[in-house]
Amino acid sequence: MLSRDPELDPLGEQQPTEGIMSVAWKSTLNKALDANKHLKYSTFFQLATVRPDGKPSNRTVVFRGFLDDSTKITFTTDTRTFKVEHVKKMPWAEACWYFSDSREQFRLGGDLVIVGPDHPDAHLREARQDAWNNMSTGGRSWFAWPASGRPREPNKEEFEKPVPDKGEEALPSFALVYMDVDTVDYVLLPDVRLGYDSTVTSEGSREWHQQELNP
Amino acid sequence: MLSRDPELDPLGEQQPTEGIMSVAWKSTLNKALDANKHLKYSTFFQLATVRPDGKPSNRTVVFRGFLDDSTKITFTTDTRTFKVEHVKKMPWAEACWYFSDSREQFRLGGDLVIVGPDHPDAHLREARQDAWNNMSTGGRSWFAWPASGRPREPNKEEFEKPVPDKGEEALPSFALVYMDVDTVDYVLLPDVRLGYDSTVTSEGSREWHQQELNP
Repeated sequence: MLSRDPELDPLGEQQPTEGIMSVAWKSTLNKALDANKHLKYSTFFQLATVRPDGKPSNRTVVFRGFLDDSTKITFTTDTRTFKVEHVKKMPWAEACWYFSDSREQFRLGGDLVIVGPDHPDAHLREARQDAWNNMSTGGRSWFAWPASGRPREPNKEEFEKPVPDKGEEALPSFALVYMDVDTVDYVLLPDVRLGYDSTVTSEGSREWHQQELNP
Repeated sequence: MLSRDPELDPLGEQQPTEGIMSVAWKSTLNKALDANKHLKYSTFFQLATVRPDGKPSNRTVVFRGFLDDSTKITFTTDTRTFKVEHVKKMPWAEACWYFSDSREQFRLGGDLVIVGPDHPDAHLREARQDAWNNMSTGGRSWFAWPASGRPREPNKEEFEKPVPDKGEEALPSFALVYMDVDTVDYVLLPDVRLGYDSTVTSEGSREWHQQELNP
């Protein structure tokens, strides 16, 4: 259920290998994270996906860092959520991240890849386990609860099941998700706006193009 | 350009007339607005729409109050933005509103209606002008600037055009938007989640149904 068709997986054999310093929007995003780090919710952003009926869906998720040195942003999810169903049909999503102190907005678009326990890439499975090890006790306990968004389970014992500790094998419901960011729209209020899009070169690296836009 | 097909307009002749006190989620949202009002961005939420190519789009907008005594939420937009194009093809949108101090999330889904200067309903045109009158000088000046999101206009004078004052007729690019909210998903972290959906009765009022969900 959790593994994706390797042909749809943009990591695959030709993982883009762009350098950290060469990507302007990533430097800007890292600076915004630093400038707003005193706000406990500075790592929260809103993720839009599309439902099977074609309507949009939107919810708050928590940034869990970039994948390795790439421009892929990561977060975690429960494999039983509706968004995982959405991604199977339409993997492209858009994150909207507003930094309230510095008045910056990042809109990051790209394909989502769900990394569950059966993902074929060993390195990604390891990244998933690392993400589990970095979760708080409260965060981990969610993955043992009945499936979210479904009618409330009346049996309270179902919310009191034991949860593997940090370092122990993550529950099957736990997934790491990454977005292979391919477009970025950056706004610094009141009047700076930059658009970024990218192409994947024949060597498999992602080349970024920046354009000034009207705010 | 701004007026919508009246048949698609959920206001129309049979405007839903639900009472304020009878709608639980609206009371909860008003309480959250009050509990977080010391945060200048507490009225900011993220709005997801769907592009003509079927991909989701997501950006931050500012809540401008409920329309009259209804459960319709309002914000403003420039009629030249991409989101107005999206809404023509797929009017259903989802707002995600996270209140960082009280740890509450509201997801509000429903059709968007764009109210520009040519909207056939006089009361809505008046509500649009009221929204213009309530904008700050900086907020109003945006609507005289070159169209946002397009390649940067090099001529600086294009950003220095005079803007009508409060009380003067709003620029044609200015639109009020309302969402005729028909579903709500409410989360109070860590463990409360309520789902609301609604039906329109034969009298044209909206009847709400609440269900407890797994968090």
